[in-house]
This record gives sequence, C-alpha cells and structure tokens, in this order.
Amino acid sequence: MDQPLLSADAVIAALHWRYATKKFDPAKKLSAEEWTKFEQVLELSPSSYGMQPYRFLVIHDPALREQLKPAAYGQSQITDASHLVVFASRLDVTDADVDHYMQRISQVRGIDVAHLEESFGKRIKGDVVHGPRHAEIKEWCARQAYIALGNLMTFAAMVSVDICPMEGFDNKKYDEILGLAAEGYRSVVLAAVGHRAADDGAASLPKVRLPEEELIVNR
Amino acid sequence: MDQPLLSADAVIAALHWRYATKKFDPAKKLSAEEWTKFEQVLELSPSSYGMQPYRFLVIHDPALREQLKPAAYGQSQITDASHLVVFASRLDVTDADVDHYMQRISQVRGIDVAHLEESFGKRIKGDVVHGPRHAEIKEWCARQAYIALGNLMTFAAMVSVDICPMEGFDNKKYDEILGLAAEGYRSVVLAAVGHRAADDGAASLPKVRLPEEELIVNR
Repeated sequence: MDQPLLSADAVIAALHWRYATKKFDPAKKLSAEEWTKFEQVLELSPSSYGMQPYRFLVIHDPALREQLKPAAYGQSQITDASHLVVFASRLDVTDADVDHYMQRISQVRGIDVAHLEESFGKRIKGDVVHGPRHAEIKEWCARQAYIALGNLMTFAAMVSVDICPMEGFDNKKYDEILGLAAEGYRSVVLAAVGHRAADDGAASLPKVRLPEEELIVNR
Repeated sequence: MDQPLLSADAVIAALHWRYATKKFDPAKKLSAEEWTKFEQVLELSPSSYGMQPYRFLVIHDPALREQLKPAAYGQSQITDASHLVVFASRLDVTDADVDHYMQRISQVRGIDVAHLEESFGKRIKGDVVHGPRHAEIKEWCARQAYIALGNLMTFAAMVSVDICPMEGFDNKKYDEILGLAAEGYRSVVLAAVGHRAADDGAASLPKVRLPEEELIVNR
C-alpha cells in the first residue's frame, strides 16, 4: 500500500452522500456475496487490546424482524432493510475470556501461550478484569462495539450501500427476544443495511453539522 | 454515487493493511492539506440525533505533547506521531445544547426554529435531557465519540495513513492538563496519526481476530 487506494476527496464525497436512511427499498437486497464483505469489515474492526468484547447478530428471519419492529417504535427500517445487525456487547470480561484470547493469539501467531500470558494476558487482566476499568466494564465493551459501527458506516459509504444506525429501540426487549443476557451480552445499537427508497425524503436534506470551530480545537 | 467508489475487496485489503501503530516515523508529517481532510472526516462523523456531543482537540504544540506523554505511560506515539487527536465527549447535555442544535439546523436547512423545536427538539430533550438516557448521559456522549474514532480509522486506511487508537492514558490527568472539565468535557480516547516507522515490528504481526463463528450470529 505505497499508494493510497483513494483520494481523500473521493472518500469525503462518499461521506457526504451517506445519511441515516429512514426508508429502505425492501425490493433491493444485498447479495450473499456482498453481505460477506460487511461481515468481514465487522470482523476486522479494531478494539482495545484486540479483545473484541462483542458479537454481531444478523437477523435474517422475517418473522423475527416483525417481532423486533414494535420494540423499535415500529420503525420501518427494521423490516424493510436488506440486512439488520444487532450490535451486542459483553456484560463482563473475565480471566477466562482473556485466556481464551491468549489461546487465539497463540494459534494465529504461533507464540507459546505461557509466554503470551506473561507478556500480555496479565496486563489485560490487571486492567480490564481486576483493575480500574472493571468498574465500567459494560460500557467499555459497548464503546468497542461503537468503533465497529463507525467502521461499518464508512465502509458502506465506500461501496454505495445505505445504513441507518439506530439507538431508538427498547434494549431490554431486544435482549429478551434475542436471549442475549443468558449468553452474557446486551444489545447496544442497531444497523439497518440496504438501499434507500427512491422517495426517502431524508436523502435530500442538507447535512447538518456544528461549525468547525465548535468541534475542532487546535492546541 | 450510482457506482461504488471502490470494490469491497479493495477496502478490505486496506483494513488488513492497517494496524495499531506502535512506532511512528517522527520525520513523516502529514501536510496541512492532508490533515484538513482528517478534520473533515471527524466533522462528518454521524452521531445519535446528529447531536455531536463531543469535540476533537488536535495537539500541535510539541511542549504540550511532551507534557501529555508521561500521562500515557510514556508511549512514544504521543510525541512521534504527526498529529495527536484527543477525543473529548460532553459531561452532560442540557436543554440549551438542544436549543443550540435546533438553531444550527434552522440555519443550515432554512426551517423555522419553533417548528423544529416542536417536531424534533422536544423529542431529543424528552429522551436525552429529561428521559431515561440522561442517567447514562456521559457514556452516551462517549459512545458517539467512538463512532468518530471508527470512521477516522477506516478513512486513514483508505488513504494509507497510520493510526494508533489509544485508551492507555490517565484520563483525569489529560482532563486537567487540557482544562477539559471546566468546559464540560472529558477525554475518552486518543488517536495518534501519521506514518509507521520502517522498523515497527508490530506492522508485520499477523492480525488476530476471534473466529467468525464467535462473532457473527445468524438468526
């Protein structure tokens, strides 16, 4: 990658093109091959220590989508988008989770697991499991999931796919319907993915952002 | 944007290329023009309701970087990267903040502010300022900043610029040094931005991710 893939301006044009899609065209589905790339982007998303304290539920079943819709204030994106992703972050991170991660590193990089535990595992445990970060562990996990949301939104814009990120849903009901708590997770945010309906009025609204001087502080 | 800017595979190749850079080349600076694009990406980052409850401090002053370095465990990225961004999220969101935002929408879209208050402002206030989300307002703001971090990381990969996202710093010391609390903000995460040193060993390590079946759940 000596040369940039894209000019910065081309990326920025795509970020201007994207918007929180309010109305999807239910007839426009992503192919299975296209969707695979979205999953790869979720898998490649970086996280603190590389722990990936989350999972992504992809809701294909139309009946389940119908069940989830009223718990998101009846928003049409839940059923009309091509794909629906529930970002679920961990409720806790334990020593066993760190051990599991060390085993994974050992497997991928061919490093002795005892060495990894000494050089890396203990540090993570001392911070995330037994250290100050443990007091806010649920939130720490949720924040990592939001990095993945940001990545997914930028990726979608690059490949001209629409996304509606959604916080407006009843998290507890989602957790119940999807059985998340029993598996140690909670729902934190959704992404509806697909293609905008031709008549989505939201597409043509000028993008509103705070003035630069309120956002960027040079020091 | 009828045609995608990029093939999905090209984006994914860039996401494989990126890694959390441990050692920057202090001689390789981004030009002011290149940096402007990074600021634009931060400004364009989506947030819940479009509220943008954060700001981005760009630390140019070498003396200030030196002061911030020990509060990040002496990590060399703080001083060696071309640019250092402190992501600072709001400590609270008030009615006045929502009013300010309504005024901004009014200005950009030419809509009457009283109409906006009725159709949109009241809903945000009822949720974020006076509703259930207010109990976790600090965290809600922090999560929005993490979306921007995700966007910035993907953008950087697209244009072949390196980033090290950093949570390993003393947030309270950063808040003190930068005077953030007095302005209603707190530091939540950092991004060091620049170009990798040729001898950064971290660049060649195989990327470790959990197996797909642990991350993606099809329902």
